[in-house]
Amino acid sequence: MSAAEIAPLLDAITFDANGLVPVIAQAHGSGEILMMAWMNRDAVAETLTTGRVCYWSRSRQSLWRKGETSGQVQQLIELRLDCDGDCLLAVVVQEGVACHTGRRSCFFNKANPETGAWDVTSQPLISPQDLYKHGTSH
Amino acid sequence: MSAAEIAPLLDAITFDANGLVPVIAQAHGSGEILMMAWMNRDAVAETLTTGRVCYWSRSRQSLWRKGETSGQVQQLIELRLDCDGDCLLAVVVQEGVACHTGRRSCFFNKANPETGAWDVTSQPLISPQDLYKHGTSH
Repeated sequence: MSAAEIAPLLDAITFDANGLVPVIAQAHGSGEILMMAWMNRDAVAETLTTGRVCYWSRSRQSLWRKGETSGQVQQLIELRLDCDGDCLLAVVVQEGVACHTGRRSCFFNKANPETGAWDVTSQPLISPQDLYKHGTSH
Repeated sequence: MSAAEIAPLLDAITFDANGLVPVIAQAHGSGEILMMAWMNRDAVAETLTTGRVCYWSRSRQSLWRKGETSGQVQQLIELRLDCDGDCLLAVVVQEGVACHTGRRSCFFNKANPETGAWDVTSQPLISPQDLYKHGTSH
């Protein structure tokens, strides 16, 4: 998509006071929720232009091309916007794992009503050390 | 769950500067993403205690017992917390529709790379007028 084609898509999004919009990443096919992160206007534009998901890293205050250090890229299948325009849903093909802990999904803690603890429901498929041999944990 | 049982679950959640945490609601079984909303500490506690999903309404600045005016309640199946503790995933059984427009899901706008428009991908199953006969749009 060209910049001119993308502009009306971007204009329909309500960014928050920090210029960000939350983005849910869902695995294409299985429907598994992989992660939640944030995009600014430039990140949405890059994601739509390249077809590869790019977030905004709040900790680093910079564009975060998912997988740029880990290799665990997300290919965009479709991008959806909610009814009031302030949340995005990215349906993606996830290369490898989404979570910096080496797990497929970030949502691996499950509330246990019996014990009052968050039970860990999955184990890493790859060690974080192997995941980030060459950089920071993104 | 009692308040004592819930406290350690709540303590593991990182609430933002406004005391809120984003919550993704996913339909049990189908895996469909229904909506994204926010909870404060009291809303999480009430949700875990009652088994019925309660959000925090940022527009009304009050607890928002999903379905209290529309009847479209969400029964909690499980609550999950992500790796860094700042996002929740609620797997729910949705009574009727989740969206205030009368649609099943709030994410009915899909980016169209051909036209640069957000295509509407679903129609209301019930009119908002019928949904909110007795109150505001929650």
